[in-house]
Amino acid sequence: MSEPFVVAGGDAAGLSAASKCKREDPDREVIVYEKGDWISYAHCGMPYYVKGEVDSIGDLLSLSPAEVRDRGIDLHRNHEVLSVDPDSQTVRVTTGEDTFEQSYGDLLVATGARALTAPIEGTELDDVFTMHHMHSAAALRAFLTPPEEADDSIFDAGYVDLDEVSPYFEREPPETVAIVGGGYVGVEMAEAFRGWDLETHLYQRSGQPAPPFGAAVGEAITDTLREAGVELHLDTVVESLEGTEGVEQVLAEDGTLDVDCVLVGIGIRPNTELVADTGVEFGESGAIAIDDYGRTAVDNVYAAGDCAEKVHTVTGDPDWVPLGLTANRAGRAIGQTVGGEPEPIGEIAGTAVIKAFELECGRTGIIDHDRARKAGFDPVSETITAGSRSGYYPGNEATTVTLTADRKSGRLLGGTINGEDRAAVRINSLAGALHEGTTVGEFERYDLAYAPPFSPVWDPLLVAAKVLNGTVEQ
Amino acid sequence: MSEPFVVAGGDAAGLSAASKCKREDPDREVIVYEKGDWISYAHCGMPYYVKGEVDSIGDLLSLSPAEVRDRGIDLHRNHEVLSVDPDSQTVRVTTGEDTFEQSYGDLLVATGARALTAPIEGTELDDVFTMHHMHSAAALRAFLTPPEEADDSIFDAGYVDLDEVSPYFEREPPETVAIVGGGYVGVEMAEAFRGWDLETHLYQRSGQPAPPFGAAVGEAITDTLREAGVELHLDTVVESLEGTEGVEQVLAEDGTLDVDCVLVGIGIRPNTELVADTGVEFGESGAIAIDDYGRTAVDNVYAAGDCAEKVHTVTGDPDWVPLGLTANRAGRAIGQTVGGEPEPIGEIAGTAVIKAFELECGRTGIIDHDRARKAGFDPVSETITAGSRSGYYPGNEATTVTLTADRKSGRLLGGTINGEDRAAVRINSLAGALHEGTTVGEFERYDLAYAPPFSPVWDPLLVAAKVLNGTVEQ
Repeated sequence: MSEPFVVAGGDAAGLSAASKCKREDPDREVIVYEKGDWISYAHCGMPYYVKGEVDSIGDLLSLSPAEVRDRGIDLHRNHEVLSVDPDSQTVRVTTGEDTFEQSYGDLLVATGARALTAPIEGTELDDVFTMHHMHSAAALRAFLTPPEEADDSIFDAGYVDLDEVSPYFEREPPETVAIVGGGYVGVEMAEAFRGWDLETHLYQRSGQPAPPFGAAVGEAITDTLREAGVELHLDTVVESLEGTEGVEQVLAEDGTLDVDCVLVGIGIRPNTELVADTGVEFGESGAIAIDDYGRTAVDNVYAAGDCAEKVHTVTGDPDWVPLGLTANRAGRAIGQTVGGEPEPIGEIAGTAVIKAFELECGRTGIIDHDRARKAGFDPVSETITAGSRSGYYPGNEATTVTLTADRKSGRLLGGTINGEDRAAVRINSLAGALHEGTTVGEFERYDLAYAPPFSPVWDPLLVAAKVLNGTVEQ
Repeated sequence: MSEPFVVAGGDAAGLSAASKCKREDPDREVIVYEKGDWISYAHCGMPYYVKGEVDSIGDLLSLSPAEVRDRGIDLHRNHEVLSVDPDSQTVRVTTGEDTFEQSYGDLLVATGARALTAPIEGTELDDVFTMHHMHSAAALRAFLTPPEEADDSIFDAGYVDLDEVSPYFEREPPETVAIVGGGYVGVEMAEAFRGWDLETHLYQRSGQPAPPFGAAVGEAITDTLREAGVELHLDTVVESLEGTEGVEQVLAEDGTLDVDCVLVGIGIRPNTELVADTGVEFGESGAIAIDDYGRTAVDNVYAAGDCAEKVHTVTGDPDWVPLGLTANRAGRAIGQTVGGEPEPIGEIAGTAVIKAFELECGRTGIIDHDRARKAGFDPVSETITAGSRSGYYPGNEATTVTLTADRKSGRLLGGTINGEDRAAVRINSLAGALHEGTTVGEFERYDLAYAPPFSPVWDPLLVAAKVLNGTVEQ
């Protein structure tokens, strides 16, 4: 009888691994320790819950603790794994009151990431929120809800701390909110706040929102946010948040703004402290370095999800792109490897999509030229705008595509897309091409779909490929 | 000075070739003969024009004759190429009144296809339409328009024969219409007729509409058509149309139906008569056989578009899939080859999409098991239904995917998709995978897009790949 498969972290990666291992090897003991109350919840859905488009917080839960246990998994919430001893193959676990040791045959570190607040001062003030934990989302939703509409059913998950969030119902909702950071969270939360008719300011250090999406998408998001009434403060560093108990002011390079509420979304960092002194290695990103099967440098210790790196299919080098599918897929593969036939965790293409009000944006691969050059490529890009449907068909929307390729080999390196009509999912055909190492000339000849309601004869991606193919030397 | 590049046919393939050749080699004389009035028009848009979603017939024209001439192309409408003499490299051309010879250096046969009406008797009756020519679309639109709404602006293309179509304005619109044939045209025209509130009957010989889309899509279209009030007559052969001047009855296996109008959409055949006795070879499909550059078996004679075959990327064998992108792409490549550096015309994956009311359907590759076996594969398929978005996000719609792979190698052979939320364009990532010869295991690891408004964590295509990957032996 082998020692248990122990998982630290009960979210996407951890529970995918635990479930898959148990399916492959039902006799194996599988133990999951989650330091908080919440398991298997949809981070990416929180902005839509805060906006009120998703009614109740319970809707964001994929699995209940009972469902996890029904799978034969020994789940312990409010159990934090404190340390790992690779020599004895044990972990130390605390419940807050008690601490104990648990031996493992295999260990998965799936400790996720945490929201950054530093170096901004004053983020400990009341009414300053991040969008990384469910209780924060619950509190903010309650704060935005007018007192006369207060309704506990929005907390129906069963483990919202009502003492903490209910008082927000009794307060008048904020009128002016500042968002610090214009990444995914900032852009999505701008939509959420405008949905409640708040005066909404968004501060972004650099000159565009959503920098990983490149300049063309950044411009489109900028225009969209402004049209939707969001006050953009671009190229503007926020120095501190000021107030006595609750936040009252944002001090930024461009002046002082009176606010009732602040949302900080300036990035996340991998939670790696658990394995800091164990011999586990870390990549340049600071996340845990792993091999093709999710194995760390320490025997029988795996890592997956937002705390771990993964190989980028374009560069062949490790990268850190903490996203949901990556976590689920790596967890599932590790569960397979631990419970049965080894399965590689796969590579990432850096595919991501974001909604900014009605604008759909997608990106995949390497689009930054400096980064492409560092990886040994000679990047060249073209940006085009084409229709999403036949020009005569109702609902045709301008769709902008940027494609980047290596000048000499013609190999596609990455690209972006934005538009209001089915733009986001179109990025998928490019993501696949990156996995295949396709050249822009080959991509141009892909037999993509055409029918007037869905696409012009030449899909916008093909139009971009035609133009870029005239630029590469291939 | 080389002899002219002569093109027979002024639609997608012909004008793409002419335009590209002229761009590559501006000094080359490029002559296009089109036997009718209409050039460069959107076949696929006709049902939406008849429905009234596209206001005027001129909206369906991509290029005017003047624009074609501005490109330096010597365009002649109402000029039919009657015959080709490969020995002297000349074609005989008639205007109806005069006939003359024209020598060519290179010849492109881009004569398209024509709508079938045989073996159904009575299709020559009045008020029986096909959906393959613009004047037929114009007449039908006029017929459907109530007399009090008659408006010549729907004929704004400048070369509608008003004497032929205007009388339809004066007639009471039909009340009951029969569609014979449940392919693309039949399904799209059902939507058009229901848009005018007609009692609409659709007859289909086989047990499902849109057979090339397979059983799962066929079921979904069947349900959609019925919910939209279309009376379906499946597995029902239409024997004849009856009437004195205008059509009055449909005689079918399941009985007799009184009708005011009939639309016949039972398929098309390639127009190949022009090169029947020239030494040009034909494929099993009856369309013109060509090589990787669009060259026929006769020197300096090319063929492209609906009259020609193209190699299927999955089987490696010639196939006949007459669609718009195929015609445009092959024409463009031949124009490049004739005017400059040779460029292959590329392969097809058989990608197609169709809209049935709000249902979006897509298909690509080889999905029919008999056909897959003939091509040397051992096919296995799985069908799944998953969400189009995160389950909690508004607008999530059930999306059904069928994937087919070779059991031994795991190579993907084809697939289909249907659903009401962005289903159609999702087929593109699978189409790309077919061009790459990807296995289902590799496809399962594609880093596709995830965000709650656009996709669940596992895109429906990935869900299908996970299931199918458990079935193949790879």
